[in-house]
Amino acid sequence: MATNKRIAFFISDGTGITAGSLGGLLAHFPETDFEQIRIPFTNDINKIEDAQKRLANAKLMSGLRPIVIMSIGDSNLRNELKQVDAFYIDLFESFLHPLGEELNEKPLTRPGVSHSITGSNYGNRMEAINFALGHDDGMTHSGLNQAQVILVGVSRCGKTPTSIYLAMQFGIKAANYPLIPEDFQRGTMPPILDGYLDKIFGLTIKPERLHSLRTERRPDSHYASLANCREEIGLAEALMRNMGIPTADSTSRSVEELSAIIIQKIKT
Amino acid sequence: MATNKRIAFFISDGTGITAGSLGGLLAHFPETDFEQIRIPFTNDINKIEDAQKRLANAKLMSGLRPIVIMSIGDSNLRNELKQVDAFYIDLFESFLHPLGEELNEKPLTRPGVSHSITGSNYGNRMEAINFALGHDDGMTHSGLNQAQVILVGVSRCGKTPTSIYLAMQFGIKAANYPLIPEDFQRGTMPPILDGYLDKIFGLTIKPERLHSLRTERRPDSHYASLANCREEIGLAEALMRNMGIPTADSTSRSVEELSAIIIQKIKT
Repeated sequence: MATNKRIAFFISDGTGITAGSLGGLLAHFPETDFEQIRIPFTNDINKIEDAQKRLANAKLMSGLRPIVIMSIGDSNLRNELKQVDAFYIDLFESFLHPLGEELNEKPLTRPGVSHSITGSNYGNRMEAINFALGHDDGMTHSGLNQAQVILVGVSRCGKTPTSIYLAMQFGIKAANYPLIPEDFQRGTMPPILDGYLDKIFGLTIKPERLHSLRTERRPDSHYASLANCREEIGLAEALMRNMGIPTADSTSRSVEELSAIIIQKIKT
Repeated sequence: MATNKRIAFFISDGTGITAGSLGGLLAHFPETDFEQIRIPFTNDINKIEDAQKRLANAKLMSGLRPIVIMSIGDSNLRNELKQVDAFYIDLFESFLHPLGEELNEKPLTRPGVSHSITGSNYGNRMEAINFALGHDDGMTHSGLNQAQVILVGVSRCGKTPTSIYLAMQFGIKAANYPLIPEDFQRGTMPPILDGYLDKIFGLTIKPERLHSLRTERRPDSHYASLANCREEIGLAEALMRNMGIPTADSTSRSVEELSAIIIQKIKT
């Protein structure tokens, strides 16, 4: 029997991204076991009625009324949906209407406004993704002058997903370069990065975690051995410290957390 | 002189991702010219005071009180921040406290809960990113049976950023394959995709838009010419239609919108 199981719906007339992004807030309630269900494109009365059936079913199945985080611009559809017993968090009523009063401007109510291609930063984000993919793992040297940040660190310390997140979320152009034994011997950053020291940010990681990540890729290799991981990390950390490169440890940090730290550093 | 310029702050004790994700809501007010400023990691009284100065400055500079979207767990810090005149949208007070009453559970108030590495889906998301990168543009054939969706379409129609978004946001493993002249001549999907028809989703695009995207990459080439774009798209659309493959047009859709459409299709 389900104990304290709650079903959380994210119902939107558009992509559901804005409503869904509030799903992170559910992590503040670790004792509640949530099932999350997204229902995007709920933009006419038939789709509202379908959603209502799912809400009613959720209540029947879990024995508890569902949580509904909703972003629906049309007030008739909104009010119709709310006929079903649930706990509603209504982004339009809680946020957009009060904000509209503050701004003295009526909010657009048509669906899909928040995540359309016409958003001011959309082109930059797509360009930054292409940049990150083209400059992953030291792949290309050309165009480095366009990079806003250059991530360095040993293989598998988290450079690639962090670069992509910086691009996708913020439109920041991030290149990344692996630090390898030649760099440690020479005692400097890869020579191709000469002149870009102020853009370089280092990622590091705990040896045990790196050992585990590398073992997934190449089990039982020297590359993945704990001794080698420990040595590479020690050398990389010393090199970055000597060169005054700011670093963050990716061991217990998400790409979201790493990106927020990196953005703060490159701004200052 | 600035007309109607408003400064919107996203102030958080953690990454600022949750608060920042509500930035999409500002798109509902197209007549207001917003400047968006993120202040993450505002988790002690000194940082609150720094933030207060920036709010006060923003009001002085713009002549209008700033908009503040805030996610701060500590009620003392929250109340201290709000001493400055601004329009506050307070995620804890608006959302988490009422939700906690509904759930009969007190929300965690320590910073960084929403986007920590311990979130249930984090490992899946990172794995899916590696999968998307390893299966981009038909790069690898192995492991295709793990793909949850296989995107197909002509070169530069949006397959790569959509695959990455599906992975980063939802932890969905998406491979992607280009459709090329050999496929059109044969009149079937790439043979390597045999047996995966039910996972295939097609992207298409308007010839004018494709011409523009390809011209950025290879100016004045046959590849980028409008005539060639028109022909490839016509053949690709006919092929996908003949094989009953669901499609979406990427011309005027963001990766967020495409992903929401794709998720709906692969579920049904």
